[in-house]
Amino acid sequence: MIKGITASQGYAIGKVYKLEELKLNVTKETITDVENEEKRLTDAIVACKKELKILREKAANNVGEDHAQIFDAHLLLVNDPDFVTQVIDIIKKDNVCVEYAVKQTREHFVAIFEAMDNEYMKERASDIKDVTNRILAKLLKINVHDPSSITSEVIIVSDDLTPSETSQLNKELVKGFITNVGGRTSHSAIMARSLEIPAIVGTKSITSHVKHGDFVIINAIDGFVIVNPNENEIMDYKNKIKEYEHQKQEWAQLKDTTTKTRDNVHVELAANIGTPNDLKGVLENGAEGIGLYRTEFLYMDRTELPTEEQQYDAYKKVLASMGNKPVVVRTLDIGGDKELPYLDFPKEMNPFLGYRAIRLCLKEKSIFETQLRALLRASTEGNLKIMFPMIATIDEFIEARDYLLSVKDKLFEEGYAVSEDIEIGMMVEIPSAALLADKFADVVDFFSIGTNDLIQYTFAADRMNEHVSYLYQPYNPSLLRLIDMVIQAAHAKGKWVGMCGEMAGDEIAVPILLGLGLDEFSMSSTSILPTRALLSKLSKEEMKQLGSEALKCRSANEVEQLVKATVKFK
Amino acid sequence: MIKGITASQGYAIGKVYKLEELKLNVTKETITDVENEEKRLTDAIVACKKELKILREKAANNVGEDHAQIFDAHLLLVNDPDFVTQVIDIIKKDNVCVEYAVKQTREHFVAIFEAMDNEYMKERASDIKDVTNRILAKLLKINVHDPSSITSEVIIVSDDLTPSETSQLNKELVKGFITNVGGRTSHSAIMARSLEIPAIVGTKSITSHVKHGDFVIINAIDGFVIVNPNENEIMDYKNKIKEYEHQKQEWAQLKDTTTKTRDNVHVELAANIGTPNDLKGVLENGAEGIGLYRTEFLYMDRTELPTEEQQYDAYKKVLASMGNKPVVVRTLDIGGDKELPYLDFPKEMNPFLGYRAIRLCLKEKSIFETQLRALLRASTEGNLKIMFPMIATIDEFIEARDYLLSVKDKLFEEGYAVSEDIEIGMMVEIPSAALLADKFADVVDFFSIGTNDLIQYTFAADRMNEHVSYLYQPYNPSLLRLIDMVIQAAHAKGKWVGMCGEMAGDEIAVPILLGLGLDEFSMSSTSILPTRALLSKLSKEEMKQLGSEALKCRSANEVEQLVKATVKFK
Repeated sequence: MIKGITASQGYAIGKVYKLEELKLNVTKETITDVENEEKRLTDAIVACKKELKILREKAANNVGEDHAQIFDAHLLLVNDPDFVTQVIDIIKKDNVCVEYAVKQTREHFVAIFEAMDNEYMKERASDIKDVTNRILAKLLKINVHDPSSITSEVIIVSDDLTPSETSQLNKELVKGFITNVGGRTSHSAIMARSLEIPAIVGTKSITSHVKHGDFVIINAIDGFVIVNPNENEIMDYKNKIKEYEHQKQEWAQLKDTTTKTRDNVHVELAANIGTPNDLKGVLENGAEGIGLYRTEFLYMDRTELPTEEQQYDAYKKVLASMGNKPVVVRTLDIGGDKELPYLDFPKEMNPFLGYRAIRLCLKEKSIFETQLRALLRASTEGNLKIMFPMIATIDEFIEARDYLLSVKDKLFEEGYAVSEDIEIGMMVEIPSAALLADKFADVVDFFSIGTNDLIQYTFAADRMNEHVSYLYQPYNPSLLRLIDMVIQAAHAKGKWVGMCGEMAGDEIAVPILLGLGLDEFSMSSTSILPTRALLSKLSKEEMKQLGSEALKCRSANEVEQLVKATVKFK
Repeated sequence: MIKGITASQGYAIGKVYKLEELKLNVTKETITDVENEEKRLTDAIVACKKELKILREKAANNVGEDHAQIFDAHLLLVNDPDFVTQVIDIIKKDNVCVEYAVKQTREHFVAIFEAMDNEYMKERASDIKDVTNRILAKLLKINVHDPSSITSEVIIVSDDLTPSETSQLNKELVKGFITNVGGRTSHSAIMARSLEIPAIVGTKSITSHVKHGDFVIINAIDGFVIVNPNENEIMDYKNKIKEYEHQKQEWAQLKDTTTKTRDNVHVELAANIGTPNDLKGVLENGAEGIGLYRTEFLYMDRTELPTEEQQYDAYKKVLASMGNKPVVVRTLDIGGDKELPYLDFPKEMNPFLGYRAIRLCLKEKSIFETQLRALLRASTEGNLKIMFPMIATIDEFIEARDYLLSVKDKLFEEGYAVSEDIEIGMMVEIPSAALLADKFADVVDFFSIGTNDLIQYTFAADRMNEHVSYLYQPYNPSLLRLIDMVIQAAHAKGKWVGMCGEMAGDEIAVPILLGLGLDEFSMSSTSILPTRALLSKLSKEEMKQLGSEALKCRSANEVEQLVKATVKFK
């Protein structure tokens, strides 16, 4: 049994298809014919481009247009003049072979991106590795892996899956995958969830425990792999797979129903999205709205700020697709660890406690104005609600709201139509906001509790830091008390409260949150149907009792035991 | 009028003595006679050592033994074999003059220390600059500044003051200083407070606004400088100086009194200290105890962990000096931004939300054990109380307390005497601890609220970060509510509550804290007497009303106005 991190839930049984690491042995050869090396580079790049275009087409058929776009990024990289210039400079300056120059250049760029210390930019480093591997393979006349050539049902085992490999997975044949490296937010993990292929990443050593053709079981519910299982285990897991499929069918039947508790109380189940591309999942999973539209992604993967028109198009698309259903848009939460290549943010010692989100928008009003104009103009297309991230004080909220209202007035003057029913709310993700929720409730239309950050600040622990991740305690009564304060304060003033952190879709947390009176639960699309099923089995009245008992516990563990003793999950 | 940061409070009027920046023009000369350059280096080092020893003696007479120790650090640096080896290597390898080699080496070391991104290590960089300046000046036959040669009353103006310059200030003649750079925690600022010389740092441009011999007024209460004041202003400030002196005398009379409010309620005023060297200030300012003994300094400025005996000596000295008065020792708060050169901490993205303090001690038990053994052995020397920093959950507190008790048992077995009356408490500096204070109150003997960190986490803002420092809001009702929760919870279980952040000595905060029921106020020694004077004018009964009104305000500004309208400060 080998433990790992569940990247995508489910069970799988099958034969191992081992993707061995590419052996690209580059040696430093001295050359004299510079021109010949330049020609070799050009040829390799041309061949790569051709290959990438073919792969792009295959991927579009295989995994869909959205995911095939990774190859567009790779095509951009092979065409990057900075890259080519640097390779040629090295060849000329050091009289070395093109392979060695490519390797040097790759290390230079990878180091730059990896040093950026942020998830998004690190992904760029893996794209660079992926593309340069392809170029090196061409130069060394080695074939790169081509998972699209797999013809029988398999479970892929490898050290890592590159973005281009993942995009070639055919979910009809690839029943699951297991890697040594990676985490829940790595590219391959995101892809696995999107394709609904069970996957375990970060096992550290799976490649040294299994060989090609071995039989394995993936338990991507509890996060481990069984290598060469015995007959009983296989039988057991075949049953589990059946049950799980059955459960998924049960969930699927809930798609077009509204969410109701056992005692017939409606709560709203909404989805978190990052781009209009996520709308497909939102609709397929029967979300009753969008509880969090993170607008940062519009600003990433670009060389300059998105224009008002570009933003308007994106917001319009999302609002129109959702019809009358509410769409809560969070204004830009950039800065801190989320850097933009075209904006020069100050380097900070503690970016999570730094200059970001509303703090930045209130200083950089022109960035803020462009977004607000685009949002307000799109408001006539659907049911828009706007919320501000990282609000710590009432003064900040009032300044942001008043600025929004002044932008709206200006749009009216310019002759634009703007909806008159836009609710203006705020994220509660900083303890000070929760502690003063009774005062905030006088000025906001709604709250949305962002538990991911709220937990980090409440326990003073960066959840990305493995040494303190044990302090990421959503069930801790201190956090539940903050949540309770917000809900009580809001309801006293007739306002509603949502939650858009991971906690909103967590099966231990949901019964408590229901009991505390949460009005809207917003989560990743794939969690909506299981949560709707869970809620249908819970009585709100009974959960009130659970909620108030949870507030009196003294540790996260006590709360978890309490929930497990109270709620029957099966 | 030029604004700056008050480094040390007070007023001063006087003539400018301008310390011009040393002009050390180093050019890259090619040399052939390597041996000659080596000899020049050796001669310069020998001359510097001689000079440093003389300066050390002068400083010991002038500013006291403690501060003269800076020159010991400098002597260590000139003797550092790494430094000398690197200079000689550069001379040999590049055939350059010794001046250039020293400059290169200096830049190398300064870059390493400055990159460490932490206040303490940055100070080491300024020591390196200071020492290498001295060596370069010898090589270039230029005299370094010698503030000890000042013979009339002056106000020093300079870009910066080096540690060695500051150590030569004679407080009889130097009435104040003003610099372009620096902050409240720079070496020169700390020294100014210790010498009680009014000082304004961080003006950015004072050297370009005044010339040698100009007349200036330092207002280091409100943080600005007046250049070439008119007669009225001079008159005005002469009066202010008189008043301030008068007030200081009034405060001095309170030295041996116990702290009483106007309605005769006793609260305890204690001091925060970093090393046994601070005891002098504690006793001179009539502290009723030590509310925070930060033990980190024992671990700094060293090449290896302090031994049990070394720690025992320090703790014993502090406890014995304080007699029966309480001494609250905080166990090691290292890690995060406070790095130690001899321990290899992981590099963290958000050190303030990272692996530090009790989180580290519970993992690195051998470091923790050594400190606890030293503390417990010293406990028989006085009135020891121990508290753990950065407690976020009850499990952490219980684990730390139980470990302490097991160390105590072991010491008994080994035949050591340990006091039976040691109270075991915790810092409340993480929101989760304050929110669950009622549960913590069952297991602790006392709380000490660490507002500096608590404010940072409550508002999710790094107060060292100038872009978000506006969110350092001690008067914000959200923070006051957390403090209120802690005090209410503690008193309900018969436990006491102290506060050891800057807030405890702040004149706006003190009336509120008194009203909320705070039992102990711990602050820098120099704030004790002014706070005692303030408390003697306040009625606790009246402040209760103020406290409960403050909890109902909606912003820091409202609270500040409320206090100013309620309390007469003069």
